[in-house]
Amino acid sequence: MMKVAILGYGTVGSGVGEIIMNAATADVKELSVSHILERSENLHRHPLMCDDIQTILQDESVDVVVETLGGIEPAHTFIIAALKAGKHVVSANKAVIAVYLKEFHEYAQAHGVKFLYEASCGGGIPWIHGLADAKRIDDIDEIHGIFNGTSNYILDHMGKEHQPFDVILHQAQELGYAEKDPGADIDGIDIQNKLKISSAIAFDCDVPQDIPTFGIRNIRREDIEYADSLHQKIKLIADARRKEDHFYGIVEPQLLDEGSIEASINENLNLTCLHGTTIGPLMFYGQGAGKLPTANAIVQDIIDIQKQCPTAAFTPKAEMHYDSALIEHAYVIRSNLEEAAMKEILGDDLKQCCAFRGMIYYQTKKISAYWMHDKMKEILTQDKDAFMMGIREVNA
Amino acid sequence: MMKVAILGYGTVGSGVGEIIMNAATADVKELSVSHILERSENLHRHPLMCDDIQTILQDESVDVVVETLGGIEPAHTFIIAALKAGKHVVSANKAVIAVYLKEFHEYAQAHGVKFLYEASCGGGIPWIHGLADAKRIDDIDEIHGIFNGTSNYILDHMGKEHQPFDVILHQAQELGYAEKDPGADIDGIDIQNKLKISSAIAFDCDVPQDIPTFGIRNIRREDIEYADSLHQKIKLIADARRKEDHFYGIVEPQLLDEGSIEASINENLNLTCLHGTTIGPLMFYGQGAGKLPTANAIVQDIIDIQKQCPTAAFTPKAEMHYDSALIEHAYVIRSNLEEAAMKEILGDDLKQCCAFRGMIYYQTKKISAYWMHDKMKEILTQDKDAFMMGIREVNA
Repeated sequence: MMKVAILGYGTVGSGVGEIIMNAATADVKELSVSHILERSENLHRHPLMCDDIQTILQDESVDVVVETLGGIEPAHTFIIAALKAGKHVVSANKAVIAVYLKEFHEYAQAHGVKFLYEASCGGGIPWIHGLADAKRIDDIDEIHGIFNGTSNYILDHMGKEHQPFDVILHQAQELGYAEKDPGADIDGIDIQNKLKISSAIAFDCDVPQDIPTFGIRNIRREDIEYADSLHQKIKLIADARRKEDHFYGIVEPQLLDEGSIEASINENLNLTCLHGTTIGPLMFYGQGAGKLPTANAIVQDIIDIQKQCPTAAFTPKAEMHYDSALIEHAYVIRSNLEEAAMKEILGDDLKQCCAFRGMIYYQTKKISAYWMHDKMKEILTQDKDAFMMGIREVNA
Repeated sequence: MMKVAILGYGTVGSGVGEIIMNAATADVKELSVSHILERSENLHRHPLMCDDIQTILQDESVDVVVETLGGIEPAHTFIIAALKAGKHVVSANKAVIAVYLKEFHEYAQAHGVKFLYEASCGGGIPWIHGLADAKRIDDIDEIHGIFNGTSNYILDHMGKEHQPFDVILHQAQELGYAEKDPGADIDGIDIQNKLKISSAIAFDCDVPQDIPTFGIRNIRREDIEYADSLHQKIKLIADARRKEDHFYGIVEPQLLDEGSIEASINENLNLTCLHGTTIGPLMFYGQGAGKLPTANAIVQDIIDIQKQCPTAAFTPKAEMHYDSALIEHAYVIRSNLEEAAMKEILGDDLKQCCAFRGMIYYQTKKISAYWMHDKMKEILTQDKDAFMMGIREVNA
């Protein structure tokens, strides 16, 4: 019997408790919850609750610590303390892992325990396992996907219901798909964290700390209708490439062919994709968030620990370096700036412009994503409502 | 170093040889090819070739036997002989596994070795692993997907190129996607074998031997245009459901919404889908056939053996039984039979008919798939060119 302590008993933490206590399969019957760390005012909610991390760290019977607190602190301190105390750690916390992945792996290795984090990227989708398995045989040269359900729900429903951003965001909040403060989801921060973790694993590189990121806060109904008129869909895409020892990643809205798999991803579902030397394209689709799917990924990690499944070490290679030349394509920018002002900013890379339902859409030549993300900051200082989308190339 | 003997050196077998001999990663460097079993007339092609299985079975240094011969015999005899000789066996051969899955597992267990077969369903897609992992936590209540690249290529290109079946089949044969005798692919036999294996694993049941199967041999350009007019795509779908201790499976062309993920699967790619209690929907997409993707799945199994990854035993439950009432939906049938003749066969289940580009399309009420597949045999005795498609229900 493997004893599990759960830090934080919100949506995901309580999902882990529910799956383990339901004990629906022989493998889950091998697990039991021994402690739940919660704030002192919540302790009456469950007999296993305590409010002192030391109670858990000092209990030698605890095998695995599940961290579902979210945020940087105290999650960072608790994870390291648990690893130092010789306990395996399973975390769903993309924010803290995107910063401390290497440190957590080093502590785990030094103390002979595992640090696993399947739930941190793509919720219930076995994406981290998929990357690690692909790498046993292949070099991975590309990863991309739809890594955030909230923003995908908003894009999908703006198109289906022909409603503006604010109306659909409010709807997503009512349904519990979006937070009261939706910034992490709609500004691409959540996706950026997931792309940092995924890139580090896929490309054996240190976690990149600076990924150009543009979200969907400024999207308008007209943008979606403009895409429709081109038989395209707009999706918020995380996109990273590798070529030998160079790699690069971005997060941005992209225009995709309406017949593509990416375009068919509806509601709050996620799609994660890799491309490898011998496997070719490999994609995974499922619930990227939510109580039980995310808890499922955590319990999968615990079962891997219980069954002593071998897991890959994280060994970043010093020679891998960030190269902004690796991603380039054309962009469409909606802005109310005059053509002359846009020309001032974009220079000869500005190719054409067209009017659509009272909006002006500018299109660039094929340019570096790094450069365009940089120029977009300049455009936003003059037109705070401007929006941009990369034009995804078919074989990219 | 783990020594691997490969039985058969056709497309997939030589792909396994290529991946192992390339030794691109640390994990693959742990493997080496020691023997290749081939026909005597081919022995000059590679220094590791031999033509006697006994050479391999009696060599104590051989750890793993990879079977890529295809067909029932001698594959069946060789797999059992290798397991009895204490060698792990990895097979890509869906035809022999669909019949002898239980027997192979029993021999493997009795001799303390593994029998693994990731490559038998969905080529490079980690589908068998996905099913086995999902089952560690969940009951799986549904599996479905596009399990055959050749038929998907034909359906996709008939639609894109507005060409008849024969023209596109010939094109697929020229490209090496279809065999000279395409029966296994276009009549759904290949898919039926994959669904047998997948159902047995997903539902813990004995491999069902009688799965109603209707292929795409009779499809016409008009059928695809008719589907287009309804904003639907036709896909050849394997479909199995489970409810408590009942399960059922069918293979048939189905009409799917053009915005669905299934409809977006182009060319010769595959999609495999499961639905579980806590994970919800989980789908995998990739190359379902071809030299390197299929060889990748085989090498993944060998690495699992090398790393002693725990793998699930196959333990069919006696109480699981086949229940044709589990799958029912409406059907569209194209036939040149008069309405009276169709009424004679389908009775009150015939709902309506319509003409489209000189063809007559009949639609049924929601009926049992078992019953419709049975009635279709009767229709074919009078109209050998008739075609049918199930109307897939959105939440099915």
